[in-house]
Amino acid sequence: MISRSILFASVALTFTAALATPAVAEEGMWTFDAFPAEQMRSEYGWAPDQAWLNRIRASAVRLTGGCSASFVSGQGLILTNHHCIASCLYENSNDTDDLLKNGFVAANTRDEKKCAGQQAEIVTAITDVTGDIKSAIGTMTGEALIKARDARIAAIETESCTDLAATRCQVVSLFGGGQYKLYTYRKYSDVRLAWAPEDRAATFGGDPDNFNFPRYSLDASFLRAYENGKPVATPNHLAWSPRAPKEGEITFVVGNPGSTSRLFTQSQLAFEREVRLPMTVAVMSELRGRLIRAMEESAQKEREGLDLLGGIENSLKVYIGRTTALNDPAFTDKLAQEEEKLKALSKGNAAIGDPWTAIDGAMRAYRANYTALRFTQPSGDLYGYAQALVRAAAERVKPNGERLPGYTDSALPLAEKRLLDERPVYPWLEDLQLGWSLSKAREYLGADDLDTKLLLGKESPEALAQRLVSGTKLADPAVRKALWDGGQSAIEASDDPMIIFARSLDGRQRELQKLINEQTGGPLAAAGAKLADARFGAYGEKLYPDATFTLRISYGKVGGWAERGRNVPFATTMGGTFERATGNAPFDLAPAFAANEARIDKSVTYDFVSTNDIIGGNSGSPVIDRAGNVIGAAFDGNIHSLGGNYGYDPLLNRTVSVSAEAVQEALEVMYPAPNLVKELAAKKR
Amino acid sequence: MISRSILFASVALTFTAALATPAVAEEGMWTFDAFPAEQMRSEYGWAPDQAWLNRIRASAVRLTGGCSASFVSGQGLILTNHHCIASCLYENSNDTDDLLKNGFVAANTRDEKKCAGQQAEIVTAITDVTGDIKSAIGTMTGEALIKARDARIAAIETESCTDLAATRCQVVSLFGGGQYKLYTYRKYSDVRLAWAPEDRAATFGGDPDNFNFPRYSLDASFLRAYENGKPVATPNHLAWSPRAPKEGEITFVVGNPGSTSRLFTQSQLAFEREVRLPMTVAVMSELRGRLIRAMEESAQKEREGLDLLGGIENSLKVYIGRTTALNDPAFTDKLAQEEEKLKALSKGNAAIGDPWTAIDGAMRAYRANYTALRFTQPSGDLYGYAQALVRAAAERVKPNGERLPGYTDSALPLAEKRLLDERPVYPWLEDLQLGWSLSKAREYLGADDLDTKLLLGKESPEALAQRLVSGTKLADPAVRKALWDGGQSAIEASDDPMIIFARSLDGRQRELQKLINEQTGGPLAAAGAKLADARFGAYGEKLYPDATFTLRISYGKVGGWAERGRNVPFATTMGGTFERATGNAPFDLAPAFAANEARIDKSVTYDFVSTNDIIGGNSGSPVIDRAGNVIGAAFDGNIHSLGGNYGYDPLLNRTVSVSAEAVQEALEVMYPAPNLVKELAAKKR
Repeated sequence: MISRSILFASVALTFTAALATPAVAEEGMWTFDAFPAEQMRSEYGWAPDQAWLNRIRASAVRLTGGCSASFVSGQGLILTNHHCIASCLYENSNDTDDLLKNGFVAANTRDEKKCAGQQAEIVTAITDVTGDIKSAIGTMTGEALIKARDARIAAIETESCTDLAATRCQVVSLFGGGQYKLYTYRKYSDVRLAWAPEDRAATFGGDPDNFNFPRYSLDASFLRAYENGKPVATPNHLAWSPRAPKEGEITFVVGNPGSTSRLFTQSQLAFEREVRLPMTVAVMSELRGRLIRAMEESAQKEREGLDLLGGIENSLKVYIGRTTALNDPAFTDKLAQEEEKLKALSKGNAAIGDPWTAIDGAMRAYRANYTALRFTQPSGDLYGYAQALVRAAAERVKPNGERLPGYTDSALPLAEKRLLDERPVYPWLEDLQLGWSLSKAREYLGADDLDTKLLLGKESPEALAQRLVSGTKLADPAVRKALWDGGQSAIEASDDPMIIFARSLDGRQRELQKLINEQTGGPLAAAGAKLADARFGAYGEKLYPDATFTLRISYGKVGGWAERGRNVPFATTMGGTFERATGNAPFDLAPAFAANEARIDKSVTYDFVSTNDIIGGNSGSPVIDRAGNVIGAAFDGNIHSLGGNYGYDPLLNRTVSVSAEAVQEALEVMYPAPNLVKELAAKKR
Repeated sequence: MISRSILFASVALTFTAALATPAVAEEGMWTFDAFPAEQMRSEYGWAPDQAWLNRIRASAVRLTGGCSASFVSGQGLILTNHHCIASCLYENSNDTDDLLKNGFVAANTRDEKKCAGQQAEIVTAITDVTGDIKSAIGTMTGEALIKARDARIAAIETESCTDLAATRCQVVSLFGGGQYKLYTYRKYSDVRLAWAPEDRAATFGGDPDNFNFPRYSLDASFLRAYENGKPVATPNHLAWSPRAPKEGEITFVVGNPGSTSRLFTQSQLAFEREVRLPMTVAVMSELRGRLIRAMEESAQKEREGLDLLGGIENSLKVYIGRTTALNDPAFTDKLAQEEEKLKALSKGNAAIGDPWTAIDGAMRAYRANYTALRFTQPSGDLYGYAQALVRAAAERVKPNGERLPGYTDSALPLAEKRLLDERPVYPWLEDLQLGWSLSKAREYLGADDLDTKLLLGKESPEALAQRLVSGTKLADPAVRKALWDGGQSAIEASDDPMIIFARSLDGRQRELQKLINEQTGGPLAAAGAKLADARFGAYGEKLYPDATFTLRISYGKVGGWAERGRNVPFATTMGGTFERATGNAPFDLAPAFAANEARIDKSVTYDFVSTNDIIGGNSGSPVIDRAGNVIGAAFDGNIHSLGGNYGYDPLLNRTVSVSAEAVQEALEVMYPAPNLVKELAAKKR
């Protein structure tokens, strides 16, 4: 379950800065304007042409919930993972109708359920704006560099997208500041749920099987994009091909990998290994423990906590996997050697200078500020609403170019949607998260720290959390809307305790961000541009940038791997589920599987692995064959892929996908949806 | 709160193997037969003579609960920390009489409360048996070495202590196998509680203040040793000196540091940093979270869980501090340099050879076996009872020299006492710990691992834990006694589910231990002896061994330290408590402090720091002045002392103690105990 990790990506600073050596076979999350067709042709004897790539790009969907997807019919039908829409099922559930547990099959389009915060986005253009941004930056440094860059980005985005209801413009920094590209999207901000299996069918094996293979998971679902209350017409879509994948066949995975750190320098990797990861694993493990226990208190809490727990456990597995990778000298020595090689190749080039030393300094400063930055950011949806409201009120009155990045004209529509969409709030869960985060703040900052005193005053973390959660009215979307519409005067006049709390933290949070911009963000952006030049100079232009939750394509092939002397097969069958089932959670059969055992074709290929290079954010990505048809949906990586944040190992890293064949079987037998079967079969060609 | 950490020391293998460079000033946990008087004299202008050392040694007490202490009257009165006897308060409490919360003052000796599992031990002789053990080992390697060593140790212990009711003999390996010493103890297996303040007085500041300074903690208590139902006469005892410590004055801390790893080689340190610590922090943080939440469910659970939570939080802080130290290149580079220096000094010495490479191999093997070893050991008292019963039954029928170390004739009396002493069992707490440990086993071993299947069968961790805890009768000491007395046939015939479970794991646990002995323990013991020789050859004999929970003496002086440009003062006053109190836990005043504020002398020195070198196990150690009088009880280290497991930094490492003056104030004002005041004042000289 890859994508949930991005929900828990800590602190917002983007770190992409240095550059690894050229991609090995199958390594690479390539942008659509720089696909390495020649390299692929030399390895595979075939590669797609630009027309093929354009066709696929037009069918690829980014979901603002943090996942990837694709159009698979002419009526806006979207294939993605079950875990990408679990929150939607959860938010549309109540004590008497648990959609997460029972699954959901819409009888017809009128029956489809809105998904809060979810928006579908399709890339319509990619434009290079590197020169424009770089000249705005000029020779600036530190905070000034960040401000100038962000102001120019805000201006380009505003100029390029005038229809904010239907389009979205986003400038992304690639290669850590080496390139800037403007991505233009067609967006659909009304996304509804059409079909989902039972949670147990999607999460069979649960956390123990997550990131493992062989696997037996129906991690698939269908959404539909709407506009003006009607399904949208999507002539650009992938053809549905419910067949078994073949070992060795070429596969493409097209989606939005969230973030990788393959271009990190040694001091950035050291920060991860020595500071960020140990702290993250410790505090998140405690949250996991608190939540596991709380969910045992009642069936209602069990249901209400499930979505958050899934996210936490997924993220933890990611962070533990990264810890293991960065504590493996065989893995890290390779990264160190790559850096040494680039240094040697760049030696004496005055235009490049020594960005590595600049990054060392930026990271030393970050170490000094990190704990304060991290722990002055309390957790929970209600605090998140309050913080967004307080910030938006202050930012919206500023000129566009002077605002914080999330509050520019181009960013505001999604910020507003996320804030105002209706979704349930469970006070006990808010209390648990907020109390935990405040108690960890005191633990890591120390009881005598000024930031601890700012957060807590004389209250205990638990009492403060309880007071804020029980007193705030922000769970009500109408209250949030009134504060959003009321702007700064409404925020200043508010006596909502959560708003008061967010107001009290705002100044310090801005001060810390400014400090980080000056000492770390600015230096990293400047050094990143130099490192990109070093890399292009040493290896040419055929490189892929670190992931940025923008559209990428990975090529590879269906195939298992060898591990500790045994071969892991490339696929499982539906029949295997029944052999693996123990009757005890999370290895208990989904009821629809148990009920239909005799009717299920056990020879159907269930899940399969391929060598495609993906990471969190890619969840829901279509797996596409050479013909351009969708034969599956990627939903996970194997355990070795967790080190993939820092480097790809072609021998071991694998993408895990659910086959279109298995989804078809589910649509026909376990969770019958004859309308969808018909819609998917209506091939466009 | 130092000593609790040893409760959570993972896996039993002793690792002490290599040797650091000679001690810097104040560094060192010295054995009483090798005190560096000359070195101290050169630094301080004074050092104790052997008569002084002998007198102190005869007053020093080891508590089998994992702490240190001292006799402070002629009637067996023992000074130790509150946190060392918190379990005793907890086990003597119930819903209507919460001794932990309320404190306890015995009206007279008849009123004193037995402490389960607690035994007081006083060293009466230290004998060198190095030659004896080394010739038994000869040229053996691997498992054979371990067996021969342990057999000879068992024989020496049995020969040397014939009165098992009043004496205990224990051979310890020092310098990782470089020396073997026989410690003979006078023991008192009936230890009772005489006086303890309220928990909040001892734990004011709670986990946030733990390992910090300035500090305001009354972490002191009094026990009494009994024999044949009467207080024992202890003519050898320290004089009580309830005065303020003076900055710069010489202090000795005499106690039993549990374990240090200062002699670890680079590959042993790498194992800690890369494998053991990350895993430990992750799983223990989750346990902490589960327990925190469970304790919020009722006042009863709050009370029943407090002791375990305190232990977990203390250990976690230790492990997180060690993680920080081992992730600090400035700290670890020094350790690496010391190793390089020793290698250079030993170069070409054929008798030493290359023990470093041998240790690398032993640690590679340990990495391969560690996860299985760790997670085939479930948690909880009830499982612990079952495991001890199953093992003891099998071991006791073997000849003494062939038994596992904990089950030799010399070890059995304490094992039996620990097993049969009456103590409360809280099923929900057992369930929580066992379920957690089984679920972590599945997570780290993997759902398909054979050890996971051995542990769980087809059950879920939660269901299995629930079934075992609800079905077992082992909470009843009489049931345990019957199984202990019944021996192997009783164990084999038992249908107690926990016994059945322990039986099912026993074979695999033994197999793993054998594997570890062969591939890691044996090679480490052989290499450790070589490294000790290298160290003695390079630096002479004036060295101190790693801590082994045997009696040590550390010298130093009263003094604060400088940190981030500010000076941390050497002491706090009782008045400071009232300034620091916020009214919210854990910064709420103990009721007896609040009630007596007007009567408390606020100028009394409360807690103080000194440069003495201590670690977990030292808790409760007397702080002794030059005259040999007790002026405090050590209860903690500062935050920098957490790296002290691997190396001592004289600029930053500090011991934290509660002053005898503060304890006296408490005995007179807050928790009046006129009998004890009188008893303590009856100076022997």
